[in-house]
Amino acid sequence: MTYCVGLKLDSGLLFASDSRTNAGIDNIAQFRKTHVLQKAGERAMVVLTAGNLSLSQWVIEKLERSRSASADQRTIWNVESLFDAAEVVGGLIREVQQQHGSALAAAGVESGASFVLGGQIRGEAPRMFQIYTPGNFIEATHETLYFQLGESKYGRPILDRVVSSATPLPEAVKCVLVSFDSTMRSNVSVGAPIEICWLVRDSLQVHATQKLADDDPYLTLVRQNWATNVRRAFADLPDPVWFNTAL
Amino acid sequence: MTYCVGLKLDSGLLFASDSRTNAGIDNIAQFRKTHVLQKAGERAMVVLTAGNLSLSQWVIEKLERSRSASADQRTIWNVESLFDAAEVVGGLIREVQQQHGSALAAAGVESGASFVLGGQIRGEAPRMFQIYTPGNFIEATHETLYFQLGESKYGRPILDRVVSSATPLPEAVKCVLVSFDSTMRSNVSVGAPIEICWLVRDSLQVHATQKLADDDPYLTLVRQNWATNVRRAFADLPDPVWFNTAL
Repeated sequence: MTYCVGLKLDSGLLFASDSRTNAGIDNIAQFRKTHVLQKAGERAMVVLTAGNLSLSQWVIEKLERSRSASADQRTIWNVESLFDAAEVVGGLIREVQQQHGSALAAAGVESGASFVLGGQIRGEAPRMFQIYTPGNFIEATHETLYFQLGESKYGRPILDRVVSSATPLPEAVKCVLVSFDSTMRSNVSVGAPIEICWLVRDSLQVHATQKLADDDPYLTLVRQNWATNVRRAFADLPDPVWFNTAL
Repeated sequence: MTYCVGLKLDSGLLFASDSRTNAGIDNIAQFRKTHVLQKAGERAMVVLTAGNLSLSQWVIEKLERSRSASADQRTIWNVESLFDAAEVVGGLIREVQQQHGSALAAAGVESGASFVLGGQIRGEAPRMFQIYTPGNFIEATHETLYFQLGESKYGRPILDRVVSSATPLPEAVKCVLVSFDSTMRSNVSVGAPIEICWLVRDSLQVHATQKLADDDPYLTLVRQNWATNVRRAFADLPDPVWFNTAL
């Protein structure tokens, strides 16, 4: 399984991913799911990947290689809008499906691959897209400002309760870590290290990815504090008055 | 969709269910999913139901009718252990599957039906079982003390963080309401009224069900307090030190 989150905030974009992949419960490995693609000062993009690893790696390799494509070829490196970049990524997902999809289906192997593409191209505001297996995509808005990939449910309530477009990036980092903690507690196939990177609006540069191991001091601090704080938040709730009277 | 929870605590059993069913998003109705079956002072049982409503109603009807079955018939009303009652319920689930399963499959209709059966029969401690569509079942233990039916993921983190066997019943009621709040926020196909009932250990009687409408004053109070408390719990988390230095 996988858990990835991308958030579009007023101040920029934030991305986080776990690093565990599994081909069956007896074949677990560690792979990066956050991919930074940038020409500093001109365009900065981050791709989060979920689904069949061989397909997503294929797409990332093609995106990297297209950096040196001829100028008449439409690539994520020369389009003028992130919308067009999403179209390019969607096209590659379709291409790899056509190449491998029927063989995978014949082998009974899941051939889904979904992506989050966020970033900023000079001349445009930061944007973020969720791209589905068929290559179609939707864009994050002011109201629906985050996308999740993979094991999304355990970690969603805290995002819904805490994050808005106005949330500052460091606050959003905290929230994302709580969201990952909830997910990792309930699904062992989602695992550290957690990779986090962000893109401050108009900086046109992705900040170096933070990689938090399972015993990372800050992650541990957030976990412990959150466990304590939630129990206190819970203890402070009013008791059901009808409980004792009904006994 | 459905959301039901049953908890086995040292002090007794607690059950909660939502009341929304849907046959497609354009056909939403309200049905009870908590069913109390008891002979006060001798045996007290609660059944929570999820899945195909026609099948679960059939099973509940048969359980009710068997109250007046002849003494040589093995029913939930004469077995001496809740384990045997679970076997009876499992047998009925199998029976209704045999009766309707293939016709439902031919019509492309989901024919799953899963149950939680909890209760106490005089001479035994309280027990709780989750019964699956094929009629097989597992029992809650000291370590795995709750079962969920339906939309389980959004509401699970708070249960995992807060509840243990030693949790008093009123505390568990609060926790279950928070779990329902998180679920209903994220999945509109889970909806009020929330039905809550409990069984104090050795009382051999299920306490009258509390039915909380969406605007129930206590539910509203829990919701508002929880929203505030969680945001405070979150605000109290330490900031990531590496965030500002990395900027």
